[in-house]
Amino acid sequence: MTMPAEKISDFNTFRAGNLESLDARTADRIRRRHSALGAHTALFYSSPLTLVSGEGVWLVAEDGRRYLDAYNNVPSVGHCHPVVVKAMSAQAALLNTHTRYLFDVLYDYSERLLATYPSELSNIVFTSTGSESNDLALRIAERSTGNSGVIVTEYAYHGNTKAVSEVSPSSGAEFLGAHVRLVPAPRGAGAATGERFAAHVRTAIRELERDGFGVSALLVDTIFSSDGVFGDPAGFLAPAVAAVRAAGGLFIADEVQPGFGRTGAMWGFARHGLTPDIAVMGKPMGNGYPMAGVVLRPELLDRFGAEYGYFNTFGGGPVAAAVGMAVLDVIEDEGLVENARSVGAYLKQCISQVVQGVDIVREVRGAGLFIGVEFNETRPQRATTMAVIEGLKSRGVLIGAAGRLCDTIKIRPPLCFERQHADLFAGALEDTLKELCS
Amino acid sequence: MTMPAEKISDFNTFRAGNLESLDARTADRIRRRHSALGAHTALFYSSPLTLVSGEGVWLVAEDGRRYLDAYNNVPSVGHCHPVVVKAMSAQAALLNTHTRYLFDVLYDYSERLLATYPSELSNIVFTSTGSESNDLALRIAERSTGNSGVIVTEYAYHGNTKAVSEVSPSSGAEFLGAHVRLVPAPRGAGAATGERFAAHVRTAIRELERDGFGVSALLVDTIFSSDGVFGDPAGFLAPAVAAVRAAGGLFIADEVQPGFGRTGAMWGFARHGLTPDIAVMGKPMGNGYPMAGVVLRPELLDRFGAEYGYFNTFGGGPVAAAVGMAVLDVIEDEGLVENARSVGAYLKQCISQVVQGVDIVREVRGAGLFIGVEFNETRPQRATTMAVIEGLKSRGVLIGAAGRLCDTIKIRPPLCFERQHADLFAGALEDTLKELCS
Repeated sequence: MTMPAEKISDFNTFRAGNLESLDARTADRIRRRHSALGAHTALFYSSPLTLVSGEGVWLVAEDGRRYLDAYNNVPSVGHCHPVVVKAMSAQAALLNTHTRYLFDVLYDYSERLLATYPSELSNIVFTSTGSESNDLALRIAERSTGNSGVIVTEYAYHGNTKAVSEVSPSSGAEFLGAHVRLVPAPRGAGAATGERFAAHVRTAIRELERDGFGVSALLVDTIFSSDGVFGDPAGFLAPAVAAVRAAGGLFIADEVQPGFGRTGAMWGFARHGLTPDIAVMGKPMGNGYPMAGVVLRPELLDRFGAEYGYFNTFGGGPVAAAVGMAVLDVIEDEGLVENARSVGAYLKQCISQVVQGVDIVREVRGAGLFIGVEFNETRPQRATTMAVIEGLKSRGVLIGAAGRLCDTIKIRPPLCFERQHADLFAGALEDTLKELCS
Repeated sequence: MTMPAEKISDFNTFRAGNLESLDARTADRIRRRHSALGAHTALFYSSPLTLVSGEGVWLVAEDGRRYLDAYNNVPSVGHCHPVVVKAMSAQAALLNTHTRYLFDVLYDYSERLLATYPSELSNIVFTSTGSESNDLALRIAERSTGNSGVIVTEYAYHGNTKAVSEVSPSSGAEFLGAHVRLVPAPRGAGAATGERFAAHVRTAIRELERDGFGVSALLVDTIFSSDGVFGDPAGFLAPAVAAVRAAGGLFIADEVQPGFGRTGAMWGFARHGLTPDIAVMGKPMGNGYPMAGVVLRPELLDRFGAEYGYFNTFGGGPVAAAVGMAVLDVIEDEGLVENARSVGAYLKQCISQVVQGVDIVREVRGAGLFIGVEFNETRPQRATTMAVIEGLKSRGVLIGAAGRLCDTIKIRPPLCFERQHADLFAGALEDTLKELCS
């Protein structure tokens, strides 16, 4: 069992020591922020960005400069998408209540969303955040298996409740529960990747059984976002999932990051040809409206529901349902799953060309519009990543970092990203790397 | 330590056996609901209500009938309030992102909201739900005190995450954590109420210390909603809070239900002349937009932030901040805190007149627009409560239940409730009780 060296959340965070170097308005804003929210809230960049508007793949700063957003996955169908905003506004003006009353839009939405899943996953529980969804998924798994042990990857992030922080090593090793075992993310491109991953999972299973926890669940983000973005070869999850099921545990697919089309399939697990026992949804589900959910086999919910029950005040309300429906409309009408696949492939190809022969780059990988570029170990990795992030920002492009030692830049734009945006991105990356390597 | 006899959440829930007695459209809707959401989701009334719109204190059903809403506390400033909807729509169309970038509306809102608190409580963490807020508050208390024991009231409900379910006995005794001790809610009207409550809390402190947990927090809803609505005499919390602090624990005020003016003061703890160490906000904060928060002394947040950090994707986003600001605007512009006090007093007086001499009523109590009517023990209480709830519904009025054995009806309307609505309510209650006692 390995522990992360440092919290990913501490990376690319404004340091208060930089305050004097900023323009007066930004400095004042940060002072007000620190005074009200405390000094430890994460704020991107050494010179933070003040944003005033967003549209499609663009974010506009206070000084009027447009930034190409290649980072934000919440506004999955595009910043401030008019179809989504209109649906939200119309429903909020009409009826905004909870699921203890009946209203049609929820059943229309539930049926349409469930139709995108394999038929075995025919029940849904609505929550308000991905954290709440993972928290509930873990409780359901524990109850249905009678075991408490959870296997997650070394740098995973699954959310911020107490129970979910215990299975989120990227938030800091001090959070981890005694019932949690870490395995390295499945990296590599060969056929052996799945078997290597499964071997680690089998070791974790033996440890959990030996220590009396048993195996409740293997919980993975199916694109391994915070581990550094690992998607290939598709299918690599199957042997590990088989081992977990053989030990009486469930496979929980955390679709908060890969879900809703990002990897070029509607769901990240579908790329691997698997059906999870429980799928967890979050961020992109409402394109910024706070909504989330858990999709699962009905017998798992029946048992939990009969014994415990679950009610979420905001979850599945009419506004959430109307917004969720609008997001599905846009995904379909604009062909965003196909767009993620085709533009994602094009973007990966552009990036691969740019980094060819650049010695600080170790690997370009990913699926759909979720691409990671890992830097190699010949230089201090965090410094390289940070220089690329700041270099891209100075060229009007926003990205983030992931992985062990934050050695990977994370390219995860809204799904309406077009080829022209990929070209812009590749040009800015080329200039940044040239400057860095000169 | 007592255990609740039955889950409050199981009360006033539609039973599938009633399906055949319903009209075809409602039955079809419920079949679709059960098929997608499972059969165990809570759904009010033996003949559930299908809603199509809401405005102010009114909810409109599919058949066109208007219902006076005396139950719902989420739409605190009124269903679908146009000022709130407009602020949400405008901000969602302009910019909807997260707190890792800067945007002014969040600092404006934070400062304005914090100004409604005692000056010691000068920091805020934004979350998305009351459950997330209580989950975080418990983690901060545990970290800052070094203790894990939590004291809550016998029928408390604080939310639905794993950690919060462990301190929510109304969700079922099987959830309760080993580190949790239950005390009876402070009931009674005399000066001895506070001392009696403190005596129970001192016993719980001794048990938690004996069992090695120590005291991390006394966590109470300051109007004791699910215990049955207890607000008098104001000040009754002081001796218990002093005992908890003497034992090294914190006082967490759960303001999800009493907060934002409901009890006739902006915050429920203010009625008791106390300043908590941590205050938790939820439901009414966004009038239906999913947003919540934790307000606390800065040294508590500094320590937790430095060691752990906390990031909430949706929490404190521009849309949440704009909505929160609009809610504060409406509370001020429409004088809703004063309205809760004056119309609440009038409503309580009307109800007291109606129940005078009605032998099944034990007590009318509450503060502001949160009133409980408890039935006495001469009849099966759940049957009486249920008959009153259904009787009021048949007369076009919506309410809920609370307390031990659901012996109390819970009257908790939007804060724009007027004297004319109080008169309507009192008339419907009078007719209902007459029918019931005839």
